[in-house]
Amino acid sequence: MKLCRYDEDRLGVVIDTMIHDISDVQDRIRAEARYDMRGDAVIAALPQWRSRMEEAAAKAPAKPLSEIALLPPVARPSKVMAAPINYQAHINEMEAQPHITGRDQAGLPQRPKGIANQGIFLKANSAMVGASEGVAIRFPDRRNDHEVEFCIIIGKQGSHIKQEDALSYVAGYTLGLDMTVRGIQDRSFRKSCDGYAPLGPWMVTADEIPEPNNVPFTVHLNGNLQQDAHTKDMIFDVPKLLEFASEYYTLYPGDVMFTGSPPGVSEVKPGDEMRCACDLIGEMTVMVRAAE
Amino acid sequence: MKLCRYDEDRLGVVIDTMIHDISDVQDRIRAEARYDMRGDAVIAALPQWRSRMEEAAAKAPAKPLSEIALLPPVARPSKVMAAPINYQAHINEMEAQPHITGRDQAGLPQRPKGIANQGIFLKANSAMVGASEGVAIRFPDRRNDHEVEFCIIIGKQGSHIKQEDALSYVAGYTLGLDMTVRGIQDRSFRKSCDGYAPLGPWMVTADEIPEPNNVPFTVHLNGNLQQDAHTKDMIFDVPKLLEFASEYYTLYPGDVMFTGSPPGVSEVKPGDEMRCACDLIGEMTVMVRAAE
Repeated sequence: MKLCRYDEDRLGVVIDTMIHDISDVQDRIRAEARYDMRGDAVIAALPQWRSRMEEAAAKAPAKPLSEIALLPPVARPSKVMAAPINYQAHINEMEAQPHITGRDQAGLPQRPKGIANQGIFLKANSAMVGASEGVAIRFPDRRNDHEVEFCIIIGKQGSHIKQEDALSYVAGYTLGLDMTVRGIQDRSFRKSCDGYAPLGPWMVTADEIPEPNNVPFTVHLNGNLQQDAHTKDMIFDVPKLLEFASEYYTLYPGDVMFTGSPPGVSEVKPGDEMRCACDLIGEMTVMVRAAE
Repeated sequence: MKLCRYDEDRLGVVIDTMIHDISDVQDRIRAEARYDMRGDAVIAALPQWRSRMEEAAAKAPAKPLSEIALLPPVARPSKVMAAPINYQAHINEMEAQPHITGRDQAGLPQRPKGIANQGIFLKANSAMVGASEGVAIRFPDRRNDHEVEFCIIIGKQGSHIKQEDALSYVAGYTLGLDMTVRGIQDRSFRKSCDGYAPLGPWMVTADEIPEPNNVPFTVHLNGNLQQDAHTKDMIFDVPKLLEFASEYYTLYPGDVMFTGSPPGVSEVKPGDEMRCACDLIGEMTVMVRAAE
């Protein structure tokens, strides 16, 4: 099932090119949720509500996708995590160009080697946007890059998750752009500007991607293939990432994890068009604009 | 006004040693809030609801503080920010002991100099707990430190906030412990373990602390004065921190900012008692325990 948030906080099921409005189901789920729950009520309710969602979608009024505005697939994540240096070819391209990160001008050497030594970083929840919202370049005088990433949406609460059980904690997958202001500052700062975490086009439930470590995906910048990636090249694969992160903290339903950038990152400027695509998920076009 | 969350997600006003239950006000505020709002409905509603809260508290049933369990003062923050290296004496103590951070064993030099070059980091929302919940040591084989900090709770949405306007964006203040697993990993990972952001004992509204840059506060570890701090010693003061952070991202009501650790950090072990105190806020005792 492809589950989509759109327009003014509506919930829809995507079938072919149509979106079927099941916002009434969303209202019922949320009405039962505690205000102080950690994570998102709709994502948490998926196991119980899935069949009713599909029944509701079959009867629901539908609109063409072209007529709606896409929001991020999670209304209220507890946290947005992101894996650094998780593709060797991306590590190589960054080490070959230390001027991009600003670490050479600052006289600083590379960071610790290996994702286990660097750990998972956070992006601010407030950076998350849907495809329709686009990205406003916050610091036009600095280098701003796209990093397309395969993203995990957590489905149930878990801590100290074992790799062999990890996939049972996944609600679904989506695509993300880990937009980045280059520089020497903390990643959780430079990568958390408003709009620097576009997510979408929607969530595909985990049953449709039984092999998350075997997924090709791409981003085209202004029509040119810029990142041509495959999750099999990840250093920490999906189960290992969930094991690693949950050693440190509990994962909650609706938590999002960016799984790391493949090679091919490049600079974006206002006016650019980023088109992310994955056969198993879908396509989203995100526009880059100047900040107001 | 001292606004407190306690027991099973109840809201109270603290007057002397009694807590006056105004959970019905909380229910009414939340019922009007959008599910997908960024930030916390009660904190956002303070300007409109403050007088009704005080009236309700005057009539409400009261309980002694000794009979309730304190929760963090914000039910649903959009993000938890934290300033690194914001007290010179803390910078000095850390630079004098590179083995604490693990950077010498790893052959790594110091990080970039200055808070402007390091930026603000994030702590996971899921790390936040109230005083009653305590801290479970997630990695007993590594060094775990307390860092008591003066914390800001944002009151209204703002971006590109100017220093001269910054205090109008503050809902109130509280005390926090930026609990830290030492090591070379990203701060937003090591400092985000479950329970590694105790906050409390409650929020004191901003009107009671008109000079946030002139506030003494302390933490005692097992009865010994360990950090004896004053916000006048911050390198980036409260308005400057809000200006700096909001250059990068929008602040939302209920967002929390830890303003940086003063000197005197030290290791904690299960069984330890951390008592944070500030005359203008109050006192909270947080117990350290072994993880289950």
